[in-house]
Amino acid sequence: MSATTDKYAFGMIGLGTMGRSLLLNMADHGFAVAGHDKDAAKVASLNDEGKEKNVKGFGDVKEFIQSLTTPRAIMMLVPAGKIVDSVIEELTPLLDKGDILIDGGNSHFTDTNRRVEELEAKGLHFFGMGVSGGEEGARRGPSMMPGGDKDAYAVMKPIFEAIAAKVDGAPCVTYIGPGASGHFVKMVHNGIEYGIMQLIAETYEIMKTGLKLDNAAIGEVFAKWNEGRLKSFLLDITKDIFKYKAPGTDHLLLDDIKDEAKAKGTGKWTSQVAMDLQAPIPTVDTAVAMRDLSKYKALRVQAGDIYSKDEIKLDVNTDEFLIALEQAFYFNMIISYAQGMHLLSLASAEYKYELDLGDIAKIWRGGCIIRSEFLNDIFNAYQKDAKLVHLLLDSSVAELIKAAVPGARTVLSATVAAGVATPAYASSLSYFDAFRSKRMPSNLTQAQRDYFGAHTYELIGKEGVFHTQWTPKSED
Amino acid sequence: MSATTDKYAFGMIGLGTMGRSLLLNMADHGFAVAGHDKDAAKVASLNDEGKEKNVKGFGDVKEFIQSLTTPRAIMMLVPAGKIVDSVIEELTPLLDKGDILIDGGNSHFTDTNRRVEELEAKGLHFFGMGVSGGEEGARRGPSMMPGGDKDAYAVMKPIFEAIAAKVDGAPCVTYIGPGASGHFVKMVHNGIEYGIMQLIAETYEIMKTGLKLDNAAIGEVFAKWNEGRLKSFLLDITKDIFKYKAPGTDHLLLDDIKDEAKAKGTGKWTSQVAMDLQAPIPTVDTAVAMRDLSKYKALRVQAGDIYSKDEIKLDVNTDEFLIALEQAFYFNMIISYAQGMHLLSLASAEYKYELDLGDIAKIWRGGCIIRSEFLNDIFNAYQKDAKLVHLLLDSSVAELIKAAVPGARTVLSATVAAGVATPAYASSLSYFDAFRSKRMPSNLTQAQRDYFGAHTYELIGKEGVFHTQWTPKSED
Repeated sequence: MSATTDKYAFGMIGLGTMGRSLLLNMADHGFAVAGHDKDAAKVASLNDEGKEKNVKGFGDVKEFIQSLTTPRAIMMLVPAGKIVDSVIEELTPLLDKGDILIDGGNSHFTDTNRRVEELEAKGLHFFGMGVSGGEEGARRGPSMMPGGDKDAYAVMKPIFEAIAAKVDGAPCVTYIGPGASGHFVKMVHNGIEYGIMQLIAETYEIMKTGLKLDNAAIGEVFAKWNEGRLKSFLLDITKDIFKYKAPGTDHLLLDDIKDEAKAKGTGKWTSQVAMDLQAPIPTVDTAVAMRDLSKYKALRVQAGDIYSKDEIKLDVNTDEFLIALEQAFYFNMIISYAQGMHLLSLASAEYKYELDLGDIAKIWRGGCIIRSEFLNDIFNAYQKDAKLVHLLLDSSVAELIKAAVPGARTVLSATVAAGVATPAYASSLSYFDAFRSKRMPSNLTQAQRDYFGAHTYELIGKEGVFHTQWTPKSED
Repeated sequence: MSATTDKYAFGMIGLGTMGRSLLLNMADHGFAVAGHDKDAAKVASLNDEGKEKNVKGFGDVKEFIQSLTTPRAIMMLVPAGKIVDSVIEELTPLLDKGDILIDGGNSHFTDTNRRVEELEAKGLHFFGMGVSGGEEGARRGPSMMPGGDKDAYAVMKPIFEAIAAKVDGAPCVTYIGPGASGHFVKMVHNGIEYGIMQLIAETYEIMKTGLKLDNAAIGEVFAKWNEGRLKSFLLDITKDIFKYKAPGTDHLLLDDIKDEAKAKGTGKWTSQVAMDLQAPIPTVDTAVAMRDLSKYKALRVQAGDIYSKDEIKLDVNTDEFLIALEQAFYFNMIISYAQGMHLLSLASAEYKYELDLGDIAKIWRGGCIIRSEFLNDIFNAYQKDAKLVHLLLDSSVAELIKAAVPGARTVLSATVAAGVATPAYASSLSYFDAFRSKRMPSNLTQAQRDYFGAHTYELIGKEGVFHTQWTPKSED
């Protein structure tokens, strides 16, 4: 791992923004690193940017491979999907047993499972690693979620710990677990991200459409919140967005942006997998549904004409309501994290990942998109009880929830009555109310299923499954 | 297709409740039919039950096949999954070109796609057919959704039209479309069914936990509703369930049934596929999440102890509230159907099914689990405009929605304030409020995505995609 210029300690394939930033980050920490890209311009710009540093870009893949210390640690940052497979296909003949390939992109964890098995058969180690933090994070300190062979991780450990974001001196990277666990955890990170982003969007909607606040006032609220317990990366950038004027104008660029949200799919994957695992994460599901609904602009405009929203106005005291709104957002944000952590615990059991949820909360405290003050509370909860089944069962979190739920009720009952669209606010609070139901009305669902489909039902305090002829006739 | 006893016009493999009932139904309509099952007892009981009719059960599969008129029409009613493939494998060598295999189970439409292609290559026709109505429907008149080769359908058409449920003399069966369209439409039918069943369960919860009504009073409300515009199969059986005493006791069996809902997966499939098609169906998503949440009984009991629900009581005038509740349920039910129909229109375009949504509403009016008075309104909407993009855009439906939405707001704002868990009520109303938003807050989501991930954004009234350096620094 020495920083000799003859041999490089780490290799990067794909010198786009993320790949180049990570390499320069490594170089800044004294590691000699090499990069490869089919695009000669990208290779040249790396060599240009890195000329003062111990960074070398290669246009030739063989030279690149030969320049690396063994066992080689090579990270791919290329678009997820077929391209990852084609890069693997091109590389494997050039590698030696024990070499390590790391997929740093957002690949679906089932693809990663397959690749781990295929390369294991060839004596190679394959890592799926989630990297969060965007370009800035990659350059200055990301949060990284590597999953794969535990022993092989030792090769990258010093480099990753050096370049990762730090919180209280602790690096925001740790060995996650075997197989595709790293990509799975990153996928759930993104699912939580979808939920919180949707909650922020709805909070904007409540202040704009419901309270009729102007952008300056809305921006001030987000800025103020970001100085308190709600401090988070997502509120921090939201605060900036509410300051950014459209170039050459006096109004916010935000107002010129189309209200049609795109998605790369990680939130959708989270919801789809959660359903397979029977893990209820309705706040994430709602965020996915609302990104989809936003695409039907023409439909929404027609519906808006039919079901006019002109009358919408929250008939409340704004200052008092904003206090409730802060509680409501805090409450809903906690629910988003809680759903994600519950999903991780269920996936860990199902896939034998043996995830350490405390470690995961720890490395999410810095560098990544969902980093926030509250992640310290999550970290502390799992420090207290590593086997905590659900975040809402932690006594400290429970106190926060109990203090915030009145605000959540005040806000949602008002938006519902007035017609302000707050779907994620609604799913978060109704998830909580169902979650705290010792008795859900699902007994009726089971009775109906048995009535029309003879699907049987179970009885309280009596073993076995039962079927009934429910029609009055059957009572004769 | 003559009812001669030497040759049988239709064959059934799998003589369980559904298979036997469908065969006897065909025989009652004058068709000579044959059945096969590996279970000799089932074959014997069919021959016993059918001895006065033109029905014959075969234990030997070759004899069974030989007994059928050609081209043969053979329906399988066996558990979805590998068993379907093994039955196909056993049958195909015994069939002749042009013969027709029909899968009447709830297979995933992607499996059906595969089987259609595999059998097409062998000169055989494969149909995926949704059958709804349970045992009673199968025996007295189901709703059937056959998809496959259009010409081949002519072979089964007279039989299916004879045995199907009838509404105003029209049979509840029609050719749905090519490939797996029949199974896809049945899957969406079940998704709508999940949504409405969850809405009924929440209505029960509102009356029980919120209004503190006893079972008799709750049963009366459902019975009364079922005599009006809410008349439907699901409310009809709910009414019966609220009459059925636990044998030998004086209390309802319903009260003894565990509140842990099971699922066969079709609702989950609907949500997962809808996400792939970017079709927002949050009411179905919520129903799936709540069936899953119901399974975590121990968790819910712990949460109930921490977040006590003792205080829950709707502080309302019961009679007035029940009027609003009827409006709310009607509104939410319409939203469930509307989401399902929207999904069908998007799937039809994506998979080239060329679905006739009016025909589908028509055959759902009788025989199936989601049959209801309101399906006539859906049918009429697509009669008026076969190309209707979304049910909520139909002027007659719009009038019903506008009249019912006040009740939906009254009920949900009250349950939210009081803490009665109504997740599907909440997703339905918030879907509507988002759907009628000419401007959603998704512009903020896009700004955030561009800020942290350089994912770019689009501008109103300006072609192209754009990226901004949002940080204040970049403004220098």
